[in-house]
Amino acid sequence: MATDIELIIQELRKFNKDRDWDQFHNGKDLAIGLSVEASELLEAFLWKDPECVNPDKIREELADVLNYAFQMADKYNLNIKEIMLEKIQRNAKKYPVEKAKGNAKKYNEL
Amino acid sequence: MATDIELIIQELRKFNKDRDWDQFHNGKDLAIGLSVEASELLEAFLWKDPECVNPDKIREELADVLNYAFQMADKYNLNIKEIMLEKIQRNAKKYPVEKAKGNAKKYNEL
Amino acid sequence: MATDIELIIQELRKFNKDRDWDQFHNGKDLAIGLSVEASELLEAFLWKDPECVNPDKIREELADVLNYAFQMADKYNLNIKEIMLEKIQRNAKKYPVEKAKGNAKKYNEL
Amino acid sequence: MATDIELIIQELRKFNKDRDWDQFHNGKDLAIGLSVEASELLEAFLWKDPECVNPDKIREELADVLNYAFQMADKYNLNIKEIMLEKIQRNAKKYPVEKAKGNAKKYNEL
Repeated sequence: MATDIELIIQELRKFNKDRDWDQFHNGKDLAIGLSVEASELLEAFLWKDPECVNPDKIREELADVLNYAFQMADKYNLNIKEIMLEKIQRNAKKYPVEKAKGNAKKYNEL
Repeated sequence: MATDIELIIQELRKFNKDRDWDQFHNGKDLAIGLSVEASELLEAFLWKDPECVNPDKIREELADVLNYAFQMADKYNLNIKEIMLEKIQRNAKKYPVEKAKGNAKKYNEL
Repeated sequence: MATDIELIIQELRKFNKDRDWDQFHNGKDLAIGLSVEASELLEAFLWKDPECVNPDKIREELADVLNYAFQMADKYNLNIKEIMLEKIQRNAKKYPVEKAKGNAKKYNEL
Repeated sequence: MATDIELIIQELRKFNKDRDWDQFHNGKDLAIGLSVEASELLEAFLWKDPECVNPDKIREELADVLNYAFQMADKYNLNIKEIMLEKIQRNAKKYPVEKAKGNAKKYNEL
């Protein structure tokens, strides 16, 4: 049975196949699109306290970011769950609990 | 049983809880972090043809993007699968197959 | 006599000509480079109050942003002073003093 | 007599003073705004060959980028000409002509 991540990937593939869009989806433009969407999400916070942000805007822009990120993973045959858990483990070594606890410094300033 | 997405969210929560980092994770800085990571991913493509990009760099930076995006979703109590599928449906209306097929134009230029 | 802006453009042209880099400087990669540098500047503020930011980092990253922006202007034969003053005038109409005074709302929310 | 850069800065200061906007212009939001505008410029190139981009869009978005960058410089009392020429000199050392000529590699890959 497909996991939830696989199911989303399948829907994205179908969407692109129906529109014959795979021809445009080179990695470079996908990376541009992802960066542009991350900026649109960020724009929701411009000049604002985080509490005053429109939650519908976050919902919509974050979905765009995730859709591009999942397509990027699919393009490069990356297993989303695997690369995310791997990164969490790597960050756990970079930011050991005893040093990083309650501390927002970057790892190379710890 | 937890789905893949829930399992990743649980790991991210544990990581942050162990380090007492929730106090820093306001939406605005999460959105900045996400945008910064999306740019680091994009940098892998700078001055390059998409085929010449280092796949390890993509793997690593995309994982960073996804980790921030998942934390953002968790912060705003957004169900990742739900918002992604909802967005695909909305895009399907914005880009109807008969108009968008084989065409990279933005919906407002179709 | 060359103005300050012209002088900087001349230095940038010389730098690129000496390295035979004009061949790489298509508009798309310049726009990527500019966006990547703007993100590196932004990263200086991540998890921080604006007062706690390292001023040397701002100096350095802002210079990178400006260098890319000036090269972009040169690439598209845009007169920097002209387009900036034109934009200020346009913004003055978009944000009339009587409506915008002391108000950080976006023009379409005024 | 004011140089062209000083003149632009004066116009930006007047624009903000008339609207009482200095109160909002903390460095962090200026950096967000700059990054968001750089992304809007980049969006003009998405899914496109550089030759097919709308020049009016570039003119407009680049002006926004420059206006934010100049305000950022003013906020941190940075002399634009000085920091830009300083950076060109530093890059000249990082990318010596004999190594970098005709070569788009990053300095740490040279």
